[in-house]
Amino acid sequence: MSEPDVLVVAYGRDGAGAAPWVEALADRVPGLHVQSLNGPVDIARVRYAVTWRHPPGSLTGFPNLKAIFSLGAGVDHLVSDSNLPADVPIVRIVDPDLRDRMSEWVVLHTLIHHRQVRLYDWHQSEKMWVEDPFQPAAGEVRVGVMGLGVLGADATRKLKMIGFDVAGWSRTAKTLDGIETFSGQEGLDRFLARTQILVVLLPLTPETRGILNHSLFSKLARDSYFGGPILLNAGRGGLQNEADILAALDDGILKAATLDVFETEPLPESSPLWHHPAVTITPHNSAISNYGSITGFIAGEIAHLESGGAPRHTVDRQRAY
Amino acid sequence: MSEPDVLVVAYGRDGAGAAPWVEALADRVPGLHVQSLNGPVDIARVRYAVTWRHPPGSLTGFPNLKAIFSLGAGVDHLVSDSNLPADVPIVRIVDPDLRDRMSEWVVLHTLIHHRQVRLYDWHQSEKMWVEDPFQPAAGEVRVGVMGLGVLGADATRKLKMIGFDVAGWSRTAKTLDGIETFSGQEGLDRFLARTQILVVLLPLTPETRGILNHSLFSKLARDSYFGGPILLNAGRGGLQNEADILAALDDGILKAATLDVFETEPLPESSPLWHHPAVTITPHNSAISNYGSITGFIAGEIAHLESGGAPRHTVDRQRAY
Ligand SMILES: NC(=O)c1ccc[n+]([C@@H]2O[C@H](COP(=O)([O-])OP(=O)(O)OC[C@H]3O[C@@H](n4cnc5c(N)ncnc54)[C@H](OP(=O)(O)O)[C@@H]3O)[C@@H](O)[C@H]2O)c1
Ligand SMILES: NC(=O)c1ccc[n+]([C@@H]2O[C@H](COP(=O)([O-])OP(=O)(O)OC[C@H]3O[C@@H](n4cnc5c(N)ncnc54)[C@H](OP(=O)(O)O)[C@@H]3O)[C@@H](O)[C@H]2O)c1
Repeated sequence: MSEPDVLVVAYGRDGAGAAPWVEALADRVPGLHVQSLNGPVDIARVRYAVTWRHPPGSLTGFPNLKAIFSLGAGVDHLVSDSNLPADVPIVRIVDPDLRDRMSEWVVLHTLIHHRQVRLYDWHQSEKMWVEDPFQPAAGEVRVGVMGLGVLGADATRKLKMIGFDVAGWSRTAKTLDGIETFSGQEGLDRFLARTQILVVLLPLTPETRGILNHSLFSKLARDSYFGGPILLNAGRGGLQNEADILAALDDGILKAATLDVFETEPLPESSPLWHHPAVTITPHNSAISNYGSITGFIAGEIAHLESGGAPRHTVDRQRAY
Repeated sequence: MSEPDVLVVAYGRDGAGAAPWVEALADRVPGLHVQSLNGPVDIARVRYAVTWRHPPGSLTGFPNLKAIFSLGAGVDHLVSDSNLPADVPIVRIVDPDLRDRMSEWVVLHTLIHHRQVRLYDWHQSEKMWVEDPFQPAAGEVRVGVMGLGVLGADATRKLKMIGFDVAGWSRTAKTLDGIETFSGQEGLDRFLARTQILVVLLPLTPETRGILNHSLFSKLARDSYFGGPILLNAGRGGLQNEADILAALDDGILKAATLDVFETEPLPESSPLWHHPAVTITPHNSAISNYGSITGFIAGEIAHLESGGAPRHTVDRQRAY
């Protein structure tokens, strides 16, 4: 009897953190031996790899590798590995649990700005009872979502359902129910000009790196009831120029920012973002990964591939997402 | 040519605040003379009254009064007037703008608790980067909505759409898509036993006055991830016993409370609620009134009555809502 095929988990630079994934996957992929990439690996038997920030180069040299799974919606950690085997498909996670958690974060933090929670917190601390008769309804507030993929499309739909006037921007043209859509470089300025609250759910690619900079902020709508445009970024830290965010907040180009992702994570103690009065920080947990639902997705896709199906939800390495 | 019929606006104990309503209504009810109840009134010509906390007794003695409109979803200020003419229908406001604003508040403040915003605010103030890998998804959190009327039904639907496990409680049995419903006294304890986050959108009536008390809090689900049950009240202050809320928070019977309404409003400076660390206060502005949409509704209902239609959205004085 021959040895079973292997699924390797390449989690982090040193493999720390692989254990719960190994365990969760072992329960779900019968017939495969699941192990961490750290430890002795019989390279000829490795058929699948599951990765999160593996050491670059560590996924080469497996002659029978059939697919690489990214343990997250983002694949920037993967496609930035120039030694990735060229002909092996990369499958990204499509997880309703992760998607719904992200939309919770987007709706929550958009509403925190819209309903002026920070102002009322301050009023409460001063025992001030001040109703605001001019509070706009959500329908009077224009939210713009950058990135209309799995996450952006869902967030857009839920913001709309709460009542916001929502538009979206993507690389290729899209049609979404009740949402004004813009695409490409030619649609960007018009999209920004209408946007009072900007929600960013873009992947990090060579095209999007650093896109959230002073020039972009200065193109946002200035007519907001909230005194200026507001930025929410839950995409990737590499999308944003933090020096520009701080300067824009201080110049009044931006009114406030809520950030889940940062150029360096964890955010260094020295960052002025921590204590900036107009900045809300969440520690890259807008959408945490649920072992059960993510490994369930991977198991389903492996079953699909094993029964002869073509790879789905694959990453286009050229566009890098 | 005879003088036109009159619509009187009875706003507040002294009529202060009537002016913008008079103005907004005058634009929308052609053929009627709109005026404040304060000032000379030709009683025989008064055909409609629009009221918000009028002086009790001030709506009697109009021989041709056809309907009384409440300038808000709540009618406790109206039905508590024992001198209200017995045979004149009371019409309550049904305003999608107000409804949607209330649902904004409900979704926002439920998510603030669910996503532990106060904890992360504190972490930020301490420059602490602590992801919570155990954060439940909305689907793992049981929210219960008391009151499934115009406001409660919409809030319930939107909480469900965000992903929460939602149930509702009302006086009479209801069927709502995807929502577990309970009704009456016999359904109350089972409803409470499953509820981790309690959202209150009840009217204030003799039956509901003081319902939010220690006995009710002690029946809520204790197995919550958040360390105890959470109360959100945007119905009426008269529903709640504030001494009981404070005691329950200190005893651990309640974990936190977000209150928009209070026994006395504005909340007196002496109230310990202001600075209780587990209490969030909003100044009765969960759903502010929009002159345009509310007066538009009233104008529509007047046109309906004038063309011979039967009164709609009427208040049952017996049940007091
Ligand atoms: N903070 C967190 O915890 C967390 C968790 C999960 C994911 N994320 C981030 O969220 C990102 C989005 O996830 P997803 O699943 O929605 O990705 P996705 O399905 O691949 O969608 C990406 C979207 O971005 C658009 N896009 C890509 N490059 C663009 C460009 N140059 N110009 C304009 N639009 C561009 C795409 O346009 P087309 O539709 O035209 O292709 C698409 O709409 C991930 O890449 C990840 O970085 C963050
Ligand atoms: N904070 C604010 O700014 C603000 C703004 C607007 C309104 N409000 C408050 O919100 C309340 C609800 O508004 P709404 O438009 O949704 O009212 P509604 O349409 O009249 O609905 C009232 C709901 O409460 C239920 N109910 C009444 N008495 C009950 C009892 N004894 N036991 C169980 N359920 C009972 C009703 O049950 P049935 O369905 O069986 O009749 C109904 O589902 C208003 O009365 C007002 O006090 C507050």
